[in-house]
Amino acid sequence: MLRRKPKSVTQKVGQIPGSLQYTGVKREEKPGIRLLQYDEKEVLLNKELVYPDILQNLQPQKVNWIHFFTLDQVEAVEKIGEHFDIHSLMLEDTLNVEHLPKVEFSEDHVFLTLKILSLDNQNQLEQEHASFILGDDYLISFKEQRGELLKPIRLRIENNVGKVRKKRADYLFYLLVDAIVDNYFVLIEKLRTLLEDMEDSLIENSSENYIYEIHHIKKQILTIRKYIVALRESIFNLINEEPKQIFESNYKYLRDVQDHVNFVFDSIETFREDQKTLMELNMSNMSNRMNQVMKTLTVVASIFIPLTFIAGIYGMNFKNMPELDYQYGYFIVWGIMLVLTALMVWYMKRKKWF
Amino acid sequence: MLRRKPKSVTQKVGQIPGSLQYTGVKREEKPGIRLLQYDEKEVLLNKELVYPDILQNLQPQKVNWIHFFTLDQVEAVEKIGEHFDIHSLMLEDTLNVEHLPKVEFSEDHVFLTLKILSLDNQNQLEQEHASFILGDDYLISFKEQRGELLKPIRLRIENNVGKVRKKRADYLFYLLVDAIVDNYFVLIEKLRTLLEDMEDSLIENSSENYIYEIHHIKKQILTIRKYIVALRESIFNLINEEPKQIFESNYKYLRDVQDHVNFVFDSIETFREDQKTLMELNMSNMSNRMNQVMKTLTVVASIFIPLTFIAGIYGMNFKNMPELDYQYGYFIVWGIMLVLTALMVWYMKRKKWF
Amino acid sequence: MLRRKPKSVTQKVGQIPGSLQYTGVKREEKPGIRLLQYDEKEVLLNKELVYPDILQNLQPQKVNWIHFFTLDQVEAVEKIGEHFDIHSLMLEDTLNVEHLPKVEFSEDHVFLTLKILSLDNQNQLEQEHASFILGDDYLISFKEQRGELLKPIRLRIENNVGKVRKKRADYLFYLLVDAIVDNYFVLIEKLRTLLEDMEDSLIENSSENYIYEIHHIKKQILTIRKYIVALRESIFNLINEEPKQIFESNYKYLRDVQDHVNFVFDSIETFREDQKTLMELNMSNMSNRMNQVMKTLTVVASIFIPLTFIAGIYGMNFKNMPELDYQYGYFIVWGIMLVLTALMVWYMKRKKWF
Amino acid sequence: MLRRKPKSVTQKVGQIPGSLQYTGVKREEKPGIRLLQYDEKEVLLNKELVYPDILQNLQPQKVNWIHFFTLDQVEAVEKIGEHFDIHSLMLEDTLNVEHLPKVEFSEDHVFLTLKILSLDNQNQLEQEHASFILGDDYLISFKEQRGELLKPIRLRIENNVGKVRKKRADYLFYLLVDAIVDNYFVLIEKLRTLLEDMEDSLIENSSENYIYEIHHIKKQILTIRKYIVALRESIFNLINEEPKQIFESNYKYLRDVQDHVNFVFDSIETFREDQKTLMELNMSNMSNRMNQVMKTLTVVASIFIPLTFIAGIYGMNFKNMPELDYQYGYFIVWGIMLVLTALMVWYMKRKKWF
Amino acid sequence: MLRRKPKSVTQKVGQIPGSLQYTGVKREEKPGIRLLQYDEKEVLLNKELVYPDILQNLQPQKVNWIHFFTLDQVEAVEKIGEHFDIHSLMLEDTLNVEHLPKVEFSEDHVFLTLKILSLDNQNQLEQEHASFILGDDYLISFKEQRGELLKPIRLRIENNVGKVRKKRADYLFYLLVDAIVDNYFVLIEKLRTLLEDMEDSLIENSSENYIYEIHHIKKQILTIRKYIVALRESIFNLINEEPKQIFESNYKYLRDVQDHVNFVFDSIETFREDQKTLMELNMSNMSNRMNQVMKTLTVVASIFIPLTFIAGIYGMNFKNMPELDYQYGYFIVWGIMLVLTALMVWYMKRKKWF
Repeated sequence: MLRRKPKSVTQKVGQIPGSLQYTGVKREEKPGIRLLQYDEKEVLLNKELVYPDILQNLQPQKVNWIHFFTLDQVEAVEKIGEHFDIHSLMLEDTLNVEHLPKVEFSEDHVFLTLKILSLDNQNQLEQEHASFILGDDYLISFKEQRGELLKPIRLRIENNVGKVRKKRADYLFYLLVDAIVDNYFVLIEKLRTLLEDMEDSLIENSSENYIYEIHHIKKQILTIRKYIVALRESIFNLINEEPKQIFESNYKYLRDVQDHVNFVFDSIETFREDQKTLMELNMSNMSNRMNQVMKTLTVVASIFIPLTFIAGIYGMNFKNMPELDYQYGYFIVWGIMLVLTALMVWYMKRKKWF
Repeated sequence: MLRRKPKSVTQKVGQIPGSLQYTGVKREEKPGIRLLQYDEKEVLLNKELVYPDILQNLQPQKVNWIHFFTLDQVEAVEKIGEHFDIHSLMLEDTLNVEHLPKVEFSEDHVFLTLKILSLDNQNQLEQEHASFILGDDYLISFKEQRGELLKPIRLRIENNVGKVRKKRADYLFYLLVDAIVDNYFVLIEKLRTLLEDMEDSLIENSSENYIYEIHHIKKQILTIRKYIVALRESIFNLINEEPKQIFESNYKYLRDVQDHVNFVFDSIETFREDQKTLMELNMSNMSNRMNQVMKTLTVVASIFIPLTFIAGIYGMNFKNMPELDYQYGYFIVWGIMLVLTALMVWYMKRKKWF
Repeated sequence: MLRRKPKSVTQKVGQIPGSLQYTGVKREEKPGIRLLQYDEKEVLLNKELVYPDILQNLQPQKVNWIHFFTLDQVEAVEKIGEHFDIHSLMLEDTLNVEHLPKVEFSEDHVFLTLKILSLDNQNQLEQEHASFILGDDYLISFKEQRGELLKPIRLRIENNVGKVRKKRADYLFYLLVDAIVDNYFVLIEKLRTLLEDMEDSLIENSSENYIYEIHHIKKQILTIRKYIVALRESIFNLINEEPKQIFESNYKYLRDVQDHVNFVFDSIETFREDQKTLMELNMSNMSNRMNQVMKTLTVVASIFIPLTFIAGIYGMNFKNMPELDYQYGYFIVWGIMLVLTALMVWYMKRKKWF
Repeated sequence: MLRRKPKSVTQKVGQIPGSLQYTGVKREEKPGIRLLQYDEKEVLLNKELVYPDILQNLQPQKVNWIHFFTLDQVEAVEKIGEHFDIHSLMLEDTLNVEHLPKVEFSEDHVFLTLKILSLDNQNQLEQEHASFILGDDYLISFKEQRGELLKPIRLRIENNVGKVRKKRADYLFYLLVDAIVDNYFVLIEKLRTLLEDMEDSLIENSSENYIYEIHHIKKQILTIRKYIVALRESIFNLINEEPKQIFESNYKYLRDVQDHVNFVFDSIETFREDQKTLMELNMSNMSNRMNQVMKTLTVVASIFIPLTFIAGIYGMNFKNMPELDYQYGYFIVWGIMLVLTALMVWYMKRKKWF
Repeated sequence: MLRRKPKSVTQKVGQIPGSLQYTGVKREEKPGIRLLQYDEKEVLLNKELVYPDILQNLQPQKVNWIHFFTLDQVEAVEKIGEHFDIHSLMLEDTLNVEHLPKVEFSEDHVFLTLKILSLDNQNQLEQEHASFILGDDYLISFKEQRGELLKPIRLRIENNVGKVRKKRADYLFYLLVDAIVDNYFVLIEKLRTLLEDMEDSLIENSSENYIYEIHHIKKQILTIRKYIVALRESIFNLINEEPKQIFESNYKYLRDVQDHVNFVFDSIETFREDQKTLMELNMSNMSNRMNQVMKTLTVVASIFIPLTFIAGIYGMNFKNMPELDYQYGYFIVWGIMLVLTALMVWYMKRKKWF
């Protein structure tokens, strides 16, 4: 039901567990890895490195942020994973774009994978797989494609805005996750607008059938919900597990992220309710329209069928039909018909049929 | 779906976490802070202070109640927060009118934010964001606008009614929360009346379609429910956490508040059931009405279509149609028609069609 | 939705917490308090006392049962409460007839409030607020009005039937609660009969619309459920808390009460299912009836409209219509019509339309 | 909703708690109690004893199985209960055929009551109340009527088949409960067949309305579910409580029973889903049928009403109607009518109306 | 509701617990047991052994994998079970193809049974019962029939691919379970395609009734869900119990399996939602179609019934009907009719009826 064809799920069946494979769509960009190193005093930025350079340049006393712009670099991921002694099952989930949000812990790392979500102009859900591996003095981040979402954080580091340069890799980790989660608010906003617009349409334009449109919104909501539910659990586990890679004084920031995720989740739950309500409204509109149609038929038929009967009576060819010879017979019949019609209309008006 | 446009949610995206910003609608009132200080012996009231005066006038041996009439005073909030060493994330939630009810604890404070809710004359939900920061000898309260809701408590302090002057800041905190929660009962009452009126309308006026009205009530109920669910959890956490800012002997009062919140919650749950029932009744009414319309059509058509056929027979122009020449042919046909009609009516009566 | 107008909820808004007020309907009976004192040897009965007399007559070595016939005696409740050192929040709940069933514990008392429920002859739910305060050697009971429900227990004490005279106040407490809970069985029975009768009506009388009747039953069930859910929780808490006012050897009796409450609760849950089923049956009946009506219309119209067309053909006034001059044209047309009708009827029979 | 009239519930209201009374239907059989005593070496069988004989014949070194064929023997139950020091509340539940499955523990006994369930030939649910009281060296079992269900176990004891003669009363207890639970599989099977037959009927015979039949199945399922839910909880409690009357090495057998009860429960849950699906199918069938009827009406009316209009035109009696005088006017009109009909039929075919 | 007739359930009623019996369909293949023994150095493969040979050939220092190709070998299962001291209740579940997935632990074994699931070409669910008994140095696996599913693992052992030869029986156990679970992904994929195809059909072909097809999919989903729910619980228990037969360092592999099962479960839950949505869409389509039909009828009838009435008027045979004698009466009537028709069409267009 997603736009991305989930062929990847079966691609992996039958493989040796722990073997790396990128399951997303190959994108035609030049691959690249960025190394950003900083401490309170200085910042070193290396764009578009290849992995052997990275391993040579690491400086344990600084925060080392290794950022993959694309996931299309299986070898680099493998070698860097080996260097930092990261379990191959973690690396596998990094490259498996079908994986649900999840947190995992090993002796030396915290691993978190989640989705960057947005609605495009046709209100289609776009999703991007992002992962973070947090070590003591380094953070490795993975994204499917280049984008503007995490740029402000890089700029904040370069320009020394806020506390980021005074803190270690775990705060950077928080900032990145927070940026992705805050971005959900935009999505939430768009969905709310979509739902409200649909509600307005249903009320103002009550004879239109919007079932397919509501159905489309429902699918988006359910997909988003799936990711948010998994993310909520992951953040909960992250905070509960209290891994040593995160300083105790920084848990309040993660709890703030948790708060935001919960807000997003509650909104999504509300949207499901709203979507059901819209479905109900649409159904009610449709059945109301049916009522309208049937009432029209009934009004027309109930008035004219009896009248046609009367006309039929005096269209009979019996020899002996005294009324036919009355001077004003024709006009009397018209009179009777008008009275009958008036009675019918009055009765239907009373019943509020029109 | 609320009357307040939730633009605020995206306003905050991309900002440095913990930066203060009022997310509500700017109201054109003169800002003001009130300082009320009291102990068993005396009461000092300072209306419309500005924040430097407040910080100079604090008296630790008295209860210091600092009350913000509007949230439109970011600087004052920031400075007072700094003075009392309140975490900026708490202050942020104070000013973020979109935030759901929540309780939070730090070493020195209890922080609670909740909603003041009411229905206006058009049965639109009005909501106001209120927050409380409780310290050892002071309480800071925040409201979006001036109003009568908390006035009785100020008067009770000034006139030394009840136990309030003998107690400390935590009892004041209880009184204020209790006032807001008790005010929900008015809301509950109005909603119940709304639902009962709607029920009466549905039963007495069964041909009207009330779908949009019921839909409107449903939206109010769902919004209120969202706030009450969060508040219920907050009060539960507040009592469970047993912060040292609240004297042990005063927990029974908080449990009474909890009781009231639970009562409100149960009522809201009942209202949801009631609302669903109303939806059902409306649907049943509509389909019943459809039945009525169809029955009318069927009665009219079933009686007159056969009669018209008979008339049509004797309207044919065949040369040789013996009946046409009978002396009383016309009258016999009338007779047949009347008998047929009588049979039809009898059959339909037996089937209870009218 | 209850018969009693719940004006009381707002009556209390804005009052000082813990202030006593009777929120029910004032009943025009003479107030009265009964004091019944007993031990294994003797029984002392004082009807219609006023509260100062009661406080003078207490005998700690006996079981003292103070019974309020009406709740309309705020002063007496207040004074007796003061004498036994009962917290004013407990007394408040005693007089607040809107309060849901609840148990509460203090150092010296167990407080339980619950509802006496019955269906009157119009199947309207009648409810009465009852409360019990159990101390070491006394039990105070409160009822809204005089009635026969608790009389057998008084008689059992006076006539020394069963174990009651050998036991203390906690056993009396059990007997009273048990009497009220057993009385729910009558209610359950009446509801079951109501539901079964409705089911019979729906099956035998399938053309009637019973939506409002089922809706009425639903409201009764939901109201009762609300009380039973709260009571179930209260009894659970009572047994779990193990207050010292109740002897350990008597908990098995309370567990028996718990069993009964659970049985009532399970029955109510079953009734909700049953009620939904009835709703479904009614809906199905209604839509079936609609089907009947439409089938009748279709049968009549499908047979006579084509016939009328044929008659219309030969009612045309063209100069050159050879059939009209045939000797047996008229009869041939009749023949064609009969054959057509027979075909139609055969087709519809095969389709099982009648 | 059960076949047995549940008058018993109110029969017991107002009675002294713990007083024995059989609440089922009196059956006209000769009462009887069977005593079966066995150890590894020998078996003693006494049929149709009366209770004083039983109490005299007990042999503590053997397993004593006392089996009541009917519940209609209040006095015997009472006396035997007294002899084994069984609490009267347990005996009460033994005779109260309305009681849900339940387990209870005292110092010396394990008490379990459950239902023997079967569907008779009219697919009506038949239920029988059975109870077991397990002591250290005896088992007392109660059934409402004689039957074949437990006979194989008696034969196995007499013929020394399996491990039963080497084990104590707790193993006998397991065998009896297992026999009753295994018997549920027959019920499950019958229900499955019923549901599958109904499904076949709905698919093959889609114009029939099966609402009442499905409703009947639903009631059976709900009743069975009620008992199984209570039994599941009872077995769970029995295993968790680990009463000393059951040898530790025999718990694996009880867990096997638990497995079976869970299987029955899961099947019942599946059946509820299936039943809902059948309801949906039936509803869809009915509305489909309505569609058929309406389509027929529309086809007939849409073809013949315009034709009749044309015929009506040329049935008018205007002096000056040129067409009437055309030589082939009549045949041209027929031609027009046939073309019109062909167009109509083509349009409706394209719309797939028939 | 499964393709396999579940006669087995009642087959077992009344049997002595723990007696072995194969409850599946006898398949006409030659029975056979395979013994595969390996350690890091060598692999020994014996196909199609009979059980006495197996028991003689066991080599405790190697991993011994005993694989049953069919379940149709009760005696072999019994004897081998005896040799390894496996409880007969475990062996019973091995042969009972109706048993839900389940894990069980004894001192010496871990027992797991689960289903191999696939959809055949007619989208019918095919299921196969598989079980594993894991001991310290051996693994016994049971399958209902020969197949390709587990072959890659045998090849991996023979060709020494991956870590399998360096590990013990627990890793083999993991590989086999993982193969079966990964195979669910194919099923999930097929179901997703099925649902998406159905969705496309519903949107593109909105006048078709797909209720039976959707119903068929629903049944498959519910059956699969039943197995996955039970499997999920089993894997959870397996990991929680931490049996000593599984090395601690291998739990991360089982957690990966758990992850996959959870993914399958979440997908199934999503499919249920999707299936409900399809049901809704189908219902909406059907009711929409009904609307179309009724609109057509109403349009035709509302236009032509009044026109026929007018024609009927001038078909009357009154002596004195002035209009009949007008020179252009006939043409004026035609004019009136055309104007009337135009008005009708305009009105209906405005109402968007066509």
